[in-house]
Amino acid sequence: MNKVILLNKRPVGKPALADFRFSSDAIPVPTSGDVLLKTLYVSVDPYLRGRMSDSKSYVPSFEIGKPIQSGIIAEVIDSTHSEFTKGDFVSGILEWKEYQISDGKGLKKVDQNISALSSYLGILGMTGITAYLGLIEIGAPKKGETIVVSGAAGAVGSVVGQIGKILGCTVIGITGSDKKAELLKSKFKFDSAINYKTVPDLNMAIRNTCPKGVDIYFDNVGGEISDAVLANINKHARLPVCGAISLYNETKVPVGPRIQTILLTKSATMRGFIVGDFSSKFPEAIKQLAVWLKEGKLTYAETIVSGFDNIPQAFLDLFDGKNEGKMIVKI
Amino acid sequence: MNKVILLNKRPVGKPALADFRFSSDAIPVPTSGDVLLKTLYVSVDPYLRGRMSDSKSYVPSFEIGKPIQSGIIAEVIDSTHSEFTKGDFVSGILEWKEYQISDGKGLKKVDQNISALSSYLGILGMTGITAYLGLIEIGAPKKGETIVVSGAAGAVGSVVGQIGKILGCTVIGITGSDKKAELLKSKFKFDSAINYKTVPDLNMAIRNTCPKGVDIYFDNVGGEISDAVLANINKHARLPVCGAISLYNETKVPVGPRIQTILLTKSATMRGFIVGDFSSKFPEAIKQLAVWLKEGKLTYAETIVSGFDNIPQAFLDLFDGKNEGKMIVKI
Repeated sequence: MNKVILLNKRPVGKPALADFRFSSDAIPVPTSGDVLLKTLYVSVDPYLRGRMSDSKSYVPSFEIGKPIQSGIIAEVIDSTHSEFTKGDFVSGILEWKEYQISDGKGLKKVDQNISALSSYLGILGMTGITAYLGLIEIGAPKKGETIVVSGAAGAVGSVVGQIGKILGCTVIGITGSDKKAELLKSKFKFDSAINYKTVPDLNMAIRNTCPKGVDIYFDNVGGEISDAVLANINKHARLPVCGAISLYNETKVPVGPRIQTILLTKSATMRGFIVGDFSSKFPEAIKQLAVWLKEGKLTYAETIVSGFDNIPQAFLDLFDGKNEGKMIVKI
Repeated sequence: MNKVILLNKRPVGKPALADFRFSSDAIPVPTSGDVLLKTLYVSVDPYLRGRMSDSKSYVPSFEIGKPIQSGIIAEVIDSTHSEFTKGDFVSGILEWKEYQISDGKGLKKVDQNISALSSYLGILGMTGITAYLGLIEIGAPKKGETIVVSGAAGAVGSVVGQIGKILGCTVIGITGSDKKAELLKSKFKFDSAINYKTVPDLNMAIRNTCPKGVDIYFDNVGGEISDAVLANINKHARLPVCGAISLYNETKVPVGPRIQTILLTKSATMRGFIVGDFSSKFPEAIKQLAVWLKEGKLTYAETIVSGFDNIPQAFLDLFDGKNEGKMIVKI
């Protein structure tokens, strides 16, 4: 038996378990040139919410009744492909299935002797690369500058902050619990952390924590948290927009203070991106992240949930901020 | 007698004549190293609204009871300065006075044999340079792309559109009257023009006029016009924010649809700027504008009001869109 998770219906607002459907089919047999993969680790990420809608976005929508896809680490358990052999571990954008066939396109071998397999979904995978390239290419940090990161304890945010520190910046993280705020300072070496749920005035908290103002705002969340940071940006600030998790489940067009006048008076740059915008720089990013990881300058957190059946719930938990670092399901 | 216009009080919302005060003093006498200037042309510009407030902005606020300043073309009528002689024409940021003393700092000689004196306040001055550098440095237009310009019949917008055409782009202007829309097409060679006051659905009008979507949005106005353009931007769009005239007179924080999700899904860049951000490129800009002007590839419009006493009203008229091209007061 081969369990499969399909998109059952498009979520309205916050996704729910009923938006997914479990199914099963036979374990497939690879034909000439294919590999048979066994899923080991499944990445759940906020951006998948966008693919569950039918609105146009940067990646095509999932189809109703078809399997969901995300970043997956799998083991090659049978191969008729010249480049892959039984026992290889690979990463790729694959379907939420226990077993699946691949023609090898988009698969990348990963080496557990270099780093734990799950890390290829996080620090050495999409989220690490996103953090690195968003910060370097758009944030363009200079030593001594102040960086604010929202969603700071998440898979991307926790890496952004550490890279900022490596590059000699002051780094402030915004997060949603005291436990995460503590983690940002102790494990990830942020200079300060703000729990936006408990501070009486976030704008003021940022002002007090950033006496020299904010030069770079790495935005993972959008909404009112971002409003408060924007009120504190410096002249020539750079604002990479990496995510907007606070807005993904809105059913009406979210409204808020218009930001053009701030960008204008501060000569500031706000730029949305997905990691694929910088695909030519992936090798550079992976190389640098691996070096820092090996040198012990970079660390990472994972929230690992066990069991194929728990993939949908792990995804839903992202929107309640239940993860510290990368949320991964171990099969 | 030497007439002077002072800031009487800070405007609340839309500026009014009562925010200005007329005064007079003696015609000054230049002391060693100074020049005596007679004002010939006064530039009135939307950005001056920001200087009338006491909120922090990119330029210092005007002080109550002190003269307003703006771009001015003046004649040297007496000089003890080594670089300026009687009869020279100069441009500079000067005070709203009929006569004034200057130590020469920031003054630049202008030659009416090359171009009309008033043009040094517009096409060969701040607004022309703003149009050129905002479009080239932030918009980075490529041949065949679609550019939308708001405030298109204004001093900056009308130049942006023409440069876009010179560079092989399709250019659509948004403006506030049929007369201006016609001018954009006939005089400034825009491909299309939209009167936002009469179209039933601006979003739809832009969609119909830009079948290939919007690659560059040169924003002079902000507000709902910008919302409608943003709904039509392409992947990797660039959005120079040059002005936000629709918002300058708001007394409450203007709200509108949040734009981060659009920037995110389109990997788009929005960047506020003032021309001074690119000061190292002024010579390049002026040189290129002068060449195109001489070649007849570029033209300009001026709305010239006569009389020193009419400076405040000319400024107020900007907010009602009464100008075509550069608004200038001839003394």
